[in-house]
Amino acid sequence: MIYVSRLREIIKAEKQIIVAEQHAIPEDPYEQLRVAIAAVFNSWMGRRAVDYRRVNRIPDSLGTAVNVQAMVFGNMGTGSGTGVAFTRNPSTGEKKLYGEYLLNAQGEDVVAGTRTPNPITQLKKELPEVYKEFASIAQLLEQHYKDMQDVEFTIERGKLWMLQTRTGKRTGAAAVRIAVDMASEKLIDRATAVRRVTPEQLDQLLHPTVDPKTDATVLATGLPASPGAAQGQVVFSPDEAEELAREGAKVVLVRQETSPDDFHGMVAAEAIVTARGGMTSHAAVVARGMGKTCVSGANALNIDYSQQQFSVDGNVVTKGEWITVDGSTGRVFLGQVPTVRPNLGPDFYELMNWADKFRRLRVRANADTPRDAKVARGFGAEGIGLCRTEHMFFGEKRLAAMREMILAEGVGAREKALEKLLPLQRADFVGIFREMAGLPVTIRLLDPPLHEFLPSVDDLLSELAELKMAVRGAATLANMDKLLDEIDEKRTLLKHLIRMREANPMLGFRGCRLGLLFPEVTRMQCRAIFEAACETQGEKKKVALEIMVPLVSLSEELRQQAELIHEVARQVMGEHGMTIEYHVGTMIELPRAALMADHIAAHADFFSFGTNDLTQTTFGLSRDDSSRFLPSYIQNKIVSDDPFQVLDRDGVGQLVRLGTERGRSVKADLKVGICGEHGGDPRSIAFCNEIGLDYVSCSPYRVPVARLAAAQAALEVAAAQAALDAATEAAKAESTPEPALSVASD
Amino acid sequence: MIYVSRLREIIKAEKQIIVAEQHAIPEDPYEQLRVAIAAVFNSWMGRRAVDYRRVNRIPDSLGTAVNVQAMVFGNMGTGSGTGVAFTRNPSTGEKKLYGEYLLNAQGEDVVAGTRTPNPITQLKKELPEVYKEFASIAQLLEQHYKDMQDVEFTIERGKLWMLQTRTGKRTGAAAVRIAVDMASEKLIDRATAVRRVTPEQLDQLLHPTVDPKTDATVLATGLPASPGAAQGQVVFSPDEAEELAREGAKVVLVRQETSPDDFHGMVAAEAIVTARGGMTSHAAVVARGMGKTCVSGANALNIDYSQQQFSVDGNVVTKGEWITVDGSTGRVFLGQVPTVRPNLGPDFYELMNWADKFRRLRVRANADTPRDAKVARGFGAEGIGLCRTEHMFFGEKRLAAMREMILAEGVGAREKALEKLLPLQRADFVGIFREMAGLPVTIRLLDPPLHEFLPSVDDLLSELAELKMAVRGAATLANMDKLLDEIDEKRTLLKHLIRMREANPMLGFRGCRLGLLFPEVTRMQCRAIFEAACETQGEKKKVALEIMVPLVSLSEELRQQAELIHEVARQVMGEHGMTIEYHVGTMIELPRAALMADHIAAHADFFSFGTNDLTQTTFGLSRDDSSRFLPSYIQNKIVSDDPFQVLDRDGVGQLVRLGTERGRSVKADLKVGICGEHGGDPRSIAFCNEIGLDYVSCSPYRVPVARLAAAQAALEVAAAQAALDAATEAAKAESTPEPALSVASD
Repeated sequence: MIYVSRLREIIKAEKQIIVAEQHAIPEDPYEQLRVAIAAVFNSWMGRRAVDYRRVNRIPDSLGTAVNVQAMVFGNMGTGSGTGVAFTRNPSTGEKKLYGEYLLNAQGEDVVAGTRTPNPITQLKKELPEVYKEFASIAQLLEQHYKDMQDVEFTIERGKLWMLQTRTGKRTGAAAVRIAVDMASEKLIDRATAVRRVTPEQLDQLLHPTVDPKTDATVLATGLPASPGAAQGQVVFSPDEAEELAREGAKVVLVRQETSPDDFHGMVAAEAIVTARGGMTSHAAVVARGMGKTCVSGANALNIDYSQQQFSVDGNVVTKGEWITVDGSTGRVFLGQVPTVRPNLGPDFYELMNWADKFRRLRVRANADTPRDAKVARGFGAEGIGLCRTEHMFFGEKRLAAMREMILAEGVGAREKALEKLLPLQRADFVGIFREMAGLPVTIRLLDPPLHEFLPSVDDLLSELAELKMAVRGAATLANMDKLLDEIDEKRTLLKHLIRMREANPMLGFRGCRLGLLFPEVTRMQCRAIFEAACETQGEKKKVALEIMVPLVSLSEELRQQAELIHEVARQVMGEHGMTIEYHVGTMIELPRAALMADHIAAHADFFSFGTNDLTQTTFGLSRDDSSRFLPSYIQNKIVSDDPFQVLDRDGVGQLVRLGTERGRSVKADLKVGICGEHGGDPRSIAFCNEIGLDYVSCSPYRVPVARLAAAQAALEVAAAQAALDAATEAAKAESTPEPALSVASD
Repeated sequence: MIYVSRLREIIKAEKQIIVAEQHAIPEDPYEQLRVAIAAVFNSWMGRRAVDYRRVNRIPDSLGTAVNVQAMVFGNMGTGSGTGVAFTRNPSTGEKKLYGEYLLNAQGEDVVAGTRTPNPITQLKKELPEVYKEFASIAQLLEQHYKDMQDVEFTIERGKLWMLQTRTGKRTGAAAVRIAVDMASEKLIDRATAVRRVTPEQLDQLLHPTVDPKTDATVLATGLPASPGAAQGQVVFSPDEAEELAREGAKVVLVRQETSPDDFHGMVAAEAIVTARGGMTSHAAVVARGMGKTCVSGANALNIDYSQQQFSVDGNVVTKGEWITVDGSTGRVFLGQVPTVRPNLGPDFYELMNWADKFRRLRVRANADTPRDAKVARGFGAEGIGLCRTEHMFFGEKRLAAMREMILAEGVGAREKALEKLLPLQRADFVGIFREMAGLPVTIRLLDPPLHEFLPSVDDLLSELAELKMAVRGAATLANMDKLLDEIDEKRTLLKHLIRMREANPMLGFRGCRLGLLFPEVTRMQCRAIFEAACETQGEKKKVALEIMVPLVSLSEELRQQAELIHEVARQVMGEHGMTIEYHVGTMIELPRAALMADHIAAHADFFSFGTNDLTQTTFGLSRDDSSRFLPSYIQNKIVSDDPFQVLDRDGVGQLVRLGTERGRSVKADLKVGICGEHGGDPRSIAFCNEIGLDYVSCSPYRVPVARLAAAQAALEVAAAQAALDAATEAAKAESTPEPALSVASD
């Protein structure tokens, strides 16, 4: 009776709230049902639903359905209960029932995390008959749907009711293991296994974890809700998380517990920490689905939203402070803790092997150092698609020589400075050639504007201002003399800097323009490359060399640079009495290059689309400056994706397609690849596959993702073709075929 | 005998020079002839020949011929002589024999300017029979060639020999007058008259002259060898002229006399001054051909090459000092003297009228102020193709309001600042609408990056450094307080500046990106435009308004901005109870816009190709930064012309053509124009004519040139068509035509 009276009180209170918001409450139960159904339909346009669809790329036009069914109750005493479970472990993929339940509770109690539930294995002891039935149904469902299931159930006075089954969300590790296991169990075939792991899930596997050797302060330990390691500044509201992330900050969202209203903040955060809730709480499920690090149920956290801080055992952490979250172990650290790359298990390599069997596109890596090259090869890169030589100049000693070269007056002085750089570059190339023995290495000649290697004008102006003040306060005349000398020196440098400063360096004196005005730079680089190739080949390691000329817009630029490359090649090979197999090609990274690809191809053995710069110039959009308005463009649906992340098929893609076609129209065997950031993006890779590129090149850690995406793109095409063939076959079977007529012709 | 012995001495001396350079001297006259012929052929690749061809766009592959003929001598006493003459005055076009001669002299003596020759009219007195014969031959030659002739003659012991006749070089004024006169004389038809004046010659007519009211110091007076007024820093060597001009300096080349070896320096100079030589000296003829201001034979100049200075009556002018050259009167002024625009005679207007009859392309002007609009209309502009609203913000009061708007925090503060700008913009628009009543006016919404309106970071840093030093030296505490306040203020501004600074402003937060992020800016501009239109229309002056959205790359950008424009239009028209006819269109100035023109056209009434920015993005080439390498590109034939001067047909032109075709594929009546610098370049205009654009828009002073170039382009097409028709006709006459078969069909 107490129970009923409490219910009545609650109903009364709720009614008052509804009436206060000026809604009439219908007394007719059918009318109530109608209103409830309408509420579900209306939820389709609610903020959290819209946000969710945006992140998961679900079209707004899809709509939703409403099921009306009788209610069962899990809160009818200790013989009743409710729970959720996965047919396999959604964190590790282990083939073992995994879930939680609460007796005398309703579904919301488990999911919302307001009570901490029991592991499903405990049900075996509490209600063995029910458990047995449940386990058998779960297995049946998995067999039927041929995928890991996420099921919800309620026990009403000892009777098991299945409420729902759906394909379970899982971590990357679980996705790989489940796919490989199910293929081994013959539940699915290998193509299906390869298609079932999303590139995002695979990417998760490659995410860092907290360095096991760390001795950083553990603030709190919760549940390892979604693996990976991430760092960010603490924020407490989802709106703030979104806002700060838009400004480029890395944030960790800390909440008592999350609800679907927090979704946009979870998207924006690097990681999520909750004080309450279990492994299947909202925070945990959503974070796993997004591959986002999450620790849930860190009970020790004492969160104070009003003060924008939380405390643990007397330690107070305020908004803006850095924390590190380890979703694999459930630990939360104070500050920025070092992270390490993960160890990959045999399932991963197995799946990658299967993927390689299906793909047509080759996958290379962008690598500038022997170390990067080694990592890339370890991840299965089939060559280096982009080796940026400028990154080699950034060591302290090298930078000094580079600056000397840049500030040199006249060819003679420049050549002298270049002589110092030659052995350094050569040694780098030898290291890379050794690591990549037998695989192609594409080396790009010097590309960025020279002033990138010099100090900034602002810095120098500040230094000068300080020196001038120091002169005023100088204690001795000798001291003053020294300071004045220093001022003179810095003034000379400043003059140089100002002379070299460019209004739009991205569109300035860079790329092959450098090599054409200062051929001695190209000559030094080529000498370093060919000497390194000879040295490596002398060690019986095969070098497959490709030299790439950057920022070509006029075919004559490439012709003249290629001529110079061949000249140095002949020289060095003559000196070493060796033959190096090499190719000369160009980046296609300016709209004019794509438009004139047929002329440019006459001087090129290969093309590599530099889609970063091609996107910048095609859109007239500087990547460095776009953050001011691009997020609002995406928000306001002016553009569907950041074109620097996902290749813009309509515009930039048109140029890539056209450049490829025109290039091959004059040189059928022209090798064509892509080496922008897009080379590691699955949707962009699908496009590259579609238009017949030969390879994609991406950062070393993206290589496995690219291999998988390339396989999936090929399988997609094959599936579409099979569907088409089947339809054609069916149409053929339906119509009465005409007998074929053979007509003689001479 | 003295004469012969001097000749022998000269021969001996010359032989020694030749032998010293290790050439054997053949004694066989036929061998001598062969070597002489070879020398002529070899001269084709000499520096001055190569330079000349480059400037005059003569292909290197053309080659040269050698004529061998008997020599006649003008230096056989006073009954002999030599001279050059034009059948009409090459400076003014007056129909009157014009030239110079020297008795007892050879041709080189006249041309090189080493002796000052006599006017041709004097020959009438000295050798009347010869003069009569010469005058009659000159007229015959002009009638035959139907153009003004430049003839050379020698009189050998009383007998007249014609050495050469060719079409005479002339000034712009002469070209116009001769063309119009010859058409009036029925020597040529009007189409020929229009085709005969080059755009460069017409442009000369529009060049400035020295302000007649000036009281500046006249340094010297020479011959008015080539009209116009120009200013520059004095240089004495052609190499130096070329070098300084490449760095952006304006120079005047001052020489004793010029020779073909000086050609490259003359090309680089703003004007040429020589101390010796007549109206047909090398300097005079070459300068007139290039439309370059020249004063020749300024005998008072005492040039000292070694000291890099010249003196006139004790005034010493050193290298680097500014002088002003008036080629129309022959005066040389010290310093930079104000210049004024020329008065155009009836011949000019007559020729322009004829040109207008032949052209298909409309010609508009780029004009930002009522004054510019008035000038443009005076020159025959048929509308404004580009009115840049940002130029209106550069007055002192306006700039302050603009800065307030830019630095405003939040929409409210920004709108308050915009309210101050509204009446200023409106007044500008009213002025422009009044001037252009009845003609279309295309107004472009705010385009440049906002930091263009703010002081530079460097300046502010310097100011801050100075303020800091001032604090140290402050006499009173109150003074110091004031200075510290100022420092605080400047620091706040600096923070803003640094936050707004962009890596590549050309590709940054500008164009419609501003209007989309700050719709209140677009709203203010549109309100100013529509209020001005209502006001002007209230005065019974017709407004033909076109609003142009800049820097569109995504069709959605245009759709959203157009929506906003329509909204404000409806509002303002409602408030005024008036209807304004207006169109909304967009600049096509990014490669993506051209590629996606079919999508963009759905929201546009017109396109205007902004070929400046389109060239920058298609080439990946910043106009501001290209001067470092573009001249060397042209020198080394990597590119044939500066793509910012002459539209790059192959690359950028491909996008213009494709954008036009795609735009019209969805909207057949789409109005398409061009408003980059190329709109005033004759070769680019020919291209615009060829691909079917509706109009070109150029700077007001280029409008006549564009009208002429558009007519010539149309005549060129007509001539080619006529030639094709004739060939077809001829082919038809030759073949036996089949009788036409009429086949019935339903």
